[in-house]
Amino acid sequence: MRRALQLASLGKGSTSPNPCVGAVVLNEDGQLVGDGFHAYAGGCHAEVKALAQAGDRAKGGTLFVTLEPCCHYGRTPPCTEAILKSEIRRVVVGLKDPDPRVSGGGISFLQDAGIDVVSGILAEQVAYQNRDFIFRVQNGRPWGILKCAVSLDGRIGLSNGESKWISGTESRKEVHRLRANCDAVIVGGGTVRADNPLLTSRGLSIPEPLRVVLTDTLNLPADAKIFDTSIAKTLVAYRASLEAEKLNSFKGDVEFLPLTPSEPIELAKKLAEKGCNRVLWECGAKLATTALKQECIQELLVVLAPKLLGGDFAMTPLEDLGFTSMEQVLSMNFLSFQKQGNDLHLRLNCSENHS
Amino acid sequence: MRRALQLASLGKGSTSPNPCVGAVVLNEDGQLVGDGFHAYAGGCHAEVKALAQAGDRAKGGTLFVTLEPCCHYGRTPPCTEAILKSEIRRVVVGLKDPDPRVSGGGISFLQDAGIDVVSGILAEQVAYQNRDFIFRVQNGRPWGILKCAVSLDGRIGLSNGESKWISGTESRKEVHRLRANCDAVIVGGGTVRADNPLLTSRGLSIPEPLRVVLTDTLNLPADAKIFDTSIAKTLVAYRASLEAEKLNSFKGDVEFLPLTPSEPIELAKKLAEKGCNRVLWECGAKLATTALKQECIQELLVVLAPKLLGGDFAMTPLEDLGFTSMEQVLSMNFLSFQKQGNDLHLRLNCSENHS
Repeated sequence: MRRALQLASLGKGSTSPNPCVGAVVLNEDGQLVGDGFHAYAGGCHAEVKALAQAGDRAKGGTLFVTLEPCCHYGRTPPCTEAILKSEIRRVVVGLKDPDPRVSGGGISFLQDAGIDVVSGILAEQVAYQNRDFIFRVQNGRPWGILKCAVSLDGRIGLSNGESKWISGTESRKEVHRLRANCDAVIVGGGTVRADNPLLTSRGLSIPEPLRVVLTDTLNLPADAKIFDTSIAKTLVAYRASLEAEKLNSFKGDVEFLPLTPSEPIELAKKLAEKGCNRVLWECGAKLATTALKQECIQELLVVLAPKLLGGDFAMTPLEDLGFTSMEQVLSMNFLSFQKQGNDLHLRLNCSENHS
Repeated sequence: MRRALQLASLGKGSTSPNPCVGAVVLNEDGQLVGDGFHAYAGGCHAEVKALAQAGDRAKGGTLFVTLEPCCHYGRTPPCTEAILKSEIRRVVVGLKDPDPRVSGGGISFLQDAGIDVVSGILAEQVAYQNRDFIFRVQNGRPWGILKCAVSLDGRIGLSNGESKWISGTESRKEVHRLRANCDAVIVGGGTVRADNPLLTSRGLSIPEPLRVVLTDTLNLPADAKIFDTSIAKTLVAYRASLEAEKLNSFKGDVEFLPLTPSEPIELAKKLAEKGCNRVLWECGAKLATTALKQECIQELLVVLAPKLLGGDFAMTPLEDLGFTSMEQVLSMNFLSFQKQGNDLHLRLNCSENHS
């Protein structure tokens, strides 16, 4: 199952809206005769690949698969059919399908067909690996990661607005890798106007993640880099009450999404419907604060630059969260911390009350 | 020499105004016959201890000592005399005495007496171990460590002023350990009024480090915890132009230090004169900013709590540093980072332009 889990990780970032799944087939004598992972939505499921590789050798053997095999027709035929056909004797499942509508259905189907099924093996690890998928299926919005680059004194820029660059080149490369593992990258209109970012993974992910701008005004420079849709797709989510003729001023193959109200949570729901499991919020303090309040953020990447900026005005990553006592503040847990060049990268997730 | 360096570290925090020194004696055949370290000012010097332990066995042998032996009468007789008396044949020195007034004098004395002297062995490590002592000797002010406890979004408190506790209990214990390694702990009057801290190492260091309040107004609560001088000594540094009768309102055996002007740098110079090698600044944003501007800070301890506080008002660890471009900001280097309970402790030093 550990091997299946490792295999599953090879699909990380490219399987949405599907989860990452890995599978291993042993023959009757316990020898490895097939393995596979789910690489992209619409592509072969992990267990089908592994069984195909095993062929006749699967007969009487054991299939290890990190997630419960599907029992319904989607873009591909149900995996349970392939399992029956393979005449495998035993199926070991990591985690039951977290989608409450189907959970356990695949397992029951196999058991009814006389196959010995064990489940719950390394379930916690599988759940962690697919926390984005599980979160979307259960909550109807994507797993949100908020990225902020701050100085030691908690500044995201100088009082005069200058913020390029707090972090070093290695940090920015790491952010490109993070983008490559996300389905969409979200900024507000202010970031487009101030920083004119490209918001791509610089080719690390093909296709590039969807670039999303959430704007209340549609007041965006027509020549902004994100409107070059030859590199990556762009979605502009805007307040639905704005006049439609404003949309005509934008060139490129930009997708427009009217929202009522034009809030992060509404955007998140729409992105989940589009199949986004994991999105990266790279926005300024105002949008980040609203996204956080509306529970669109489940994980945090803090890029901590070893610098002191000072400044009379805040220029901090968040605005007011309405807390008046330390008992109320948002508590998180450190998942990891590592040096990237001169900077320190901290990954955290929100405590259970917020995810 | 590595053993001598390790021995030296045993005196860390208690030798001021002296440096940490360790010594090892090998006999003629290269066998260990004595070792020692400098434990406290006025106590035996490391090389004298090691030679005393070796006794006659030192004759014809080798002395390893991390810092150049002294050749002058201070609180103890010069070490060079003890070395001559021991009839040691060879002396291996880590680092020359960094005090420019005596540097090399001890070595010349020994060489003139016919002893074979080698120096510069692990000099960099010895210099790092004694960076506080060296800094004071060369700059006339103590090595300053600024401690700040901040949230992930760079806040030291909520908008309403509440700041207890951002960090966890393990973090606070670690701060007690840090205090135990410092000669003085400095706060401003505002911190005394707002937090009423005890500022001790909770018994980890005996005597406790000197508690110092830098105040412009002498407007301090007479019943503040720092005025209980039965636990630890307290120094109140105040603007010299204030009326002297104000001093009579304070009980306890408090020391008063008039300063003109009442600035961090003036306080630092006075503390260096008092023999402080290393001081801890545990002050609020205003005093921290001035101390930093006046180059009183050489090292930083950031206690990073995995929390998000938000807030309309700044409540950040520093005020304005006057920077208008990213090229001007203070750059530091990460020395270490480690988890303490739920918090992350980051140690940094200032880049060369600032230390």
